[in-house]
Amino acid sequence: MRMYGEFDFIESIRDMFARMPKNGFEGIGDDCAVLPIGDEALVFTSDMLNEGVHFLTDKSTAYQIGYKSLMVNISDVAAMGAKPVATLLSLALPQERFGEWSADFMKGYHAASKKYGVKLVGGDTTKSESGVYVSVTAIGRAPMANIKRRSGAKSGDVIMVTGELGASAVGLRDVLEGKLTTRNAKIHLQPQAHVLEGEWLGRQECVHAMCDVSDGVASDLQHILDESKKSAVISSLPGAKGTTWDDAFGGGEDYKLLLTVDKRYADDLARRFEAEFGKPIYIIGRVVKPNYDVYHIGIEQENGKVVYSSAGWGGYTHF
Amino acid sequence: MRMYGEFDFIESIRDMFARMPKNGFEGIGDDCAVLPIGDEALVFTSDMLNEGVHFLTDKSTAYQIGYKSLMVNISDVAAMGAKPVATLLSLALPQERFGEWSADFMKGYHAASKKYGVKLVGGDTTKSESGVYVSVTAIGRAPMANIKRRSGAKSGDVIMVTGELGASAVGLRDVLEGKLTTRNAKIHLQPQAHVLEGEWLGRQECVHAMCDVSDGVASDLQHILDESKKSAVISSLPGAKGTTWDDAFGGGEDYKLLLTVDKRYADDLARRFEAEFGKPIYIIGRVVKPNYDVYHIGIEQENGKVVYSSAGWGGYTHF
Repeated sequence: MRMYGEFDFIESIRDMFARMPKNGFEGIGDDCAVLPIGDEALVFTSDMLNEGVHFLTDKSTAYQIGYKSLMVNISDVAAMGAKPVATLLSLALPQERFGEWSADFMKGYHAASKKYGVKLVGGDTTKSESGVYVSVTAIGRAPMANIKRRSGAKSGDVIMVTGELGASAVGLRDVLEGKLTTRNAKIHLQPQAHVLEGEWLGRQECVHAMCDVSDGVASDLQHILDESKKSAVISSLPGAKGTTWDDAFGGGEDYKLLLTVDKRYADDLARRFEAEFGKPIYIIGRVVKPNYDVYHIGIEQENGKVVYSSAGWGGYTHF
Repeated sequence: MRMYGEFDFIESIRDMFARMPKNGFEGIGDDCAVLPIGDEALVFTSDMLNEGVHFLTDKSTAYQIGYKSLMVNISDVAAMGAKPVATLLSLALPQERFGEWSADFMKGYHAASKKYGVKLVGGDTTKSESGVYVSVTAIGRAPMANIKRRSGAKSGDVIMVTGELGASAVGLRDVLEGKLTTRNAKIHLQPQAHVLEGEWLGRQECVHAMCDVSDGVASDLQHILDESKKSAVISSLPGAKGTTWDDAFGGGEDYKLLLTVDKRYADDLARRFEAEFGKPIYIIGRVVKPNYDVYHIGIEQENGKVVYSSAGWGGYTHF
């Protein structure tokens, strides 16, 4: 659940509904809401993508927008350790977008869905006065024991990420400069969620906490720390080719998975991950005991010193 | 699942996904998608409400829009015989709507949710360039045996509706004339879904088919007939005070429940419904065998003759 805009508004919504019965749902604070049914868990997430805020129709193809709309939602399901099984899609389009544009959008949405066997089971199509609005709800399933939360990190855990970081941030700059076909622009416009990785990591007991990197490591790791009441030290980041530290640390929309792992099993997990997926998982730091009630990210320097920012490291905002 | 606009587009979506595995979900064609889990069923529906298409912000209060956004979605859950338990809400607002307007919207959404104990479990808030866009996904639960579909109607079934019809159509005319506080305008702007009625009817084995009246009886009964491969004869309609036949038959957004009932138990059901809810359920006609493969609605005249329209009776379109 990502919220933009008025934080007071979001807080007031949480307060309003906090007093209501939970109807079997578990508390908020994760990428998805969780409904346990027997030994199983169903997980739910909704994200909205809007023209002018999340994409520009003169910079993205309809196919790319459809593809991305599915991927960003199933990334949240993967971040829980669950398998995405279905989506509902609501689409508001200006009249002139019905036809070729809407058909291309659906081709992209379908291609992304088919890649992971995610069924479209419902939704709504309506006209908008202006602008394209896409709202997706994704549903995932997993054994209850597999569900990973942001709140599970323990002091001493090793922090890992499932792929290189920062390419999407560079890609966004390329896109805004009109370079729509660079390697990084394509990564930004048509991201790949780590769906199989998330499901596999869900089955690993040594994974204590997990989320996806949608707003940037600086922001998403902070959510894990806040929910787990811990601090962290970052020692290195796997920046993609041509990225700066800031791209890798603060850039958003990489859709890799960020996790904390019991340190006794970290090396073994990394070995097995590479054997399973034919690519490395990266160790980027460690979870540490917080000072008082402040949950910080520290950056380890080459000389071994750790630098904290009292103001936080800043998040990622869509253009 | 209501779809507007390009019907070719919707057909192409269905074709695209028809070839994919169902992941445990049952086929489409009802108010909700159904996921059986053991003896239980989970049901899912998404509807989008947009400024300029589904409401006008100078005619509806923010509270009313919030209230209605919840009600129209849980009406679809009730139509399946299920109990709504949770929603996800995605909201795109122009910058100037954050503040008083968004707070009032949430008060209405919360009041409607609280009335039936429906928890808000996720969603997204984002800016829009112009216009208010509301997307709600509602989740319901029921014993699998309680789930009612559009496809269950049998020849000889009695057709019933859970309340008076047409007030919302009259209310819409009032609203468009600027009369925002008439009784019917309020019914249109702040509808009440038949949530408890739906759950109760779900438990009655003699109810064979059900849907809600969102597009008007003429249109919604036709969906039941198409899915059940039957025809129907309408003998009378419980028009609300001040409504015409056309309002009651073709007017939309009444959010009553429309059902077909085994004729042997129809009188008993009507008696028990009135005892349970302190208000009548109305018998409006009967399901009949179709001629060939054409599924018609006939209107029974005072002289006993039945008039069919070969072109269908026309549906309801939002302004």
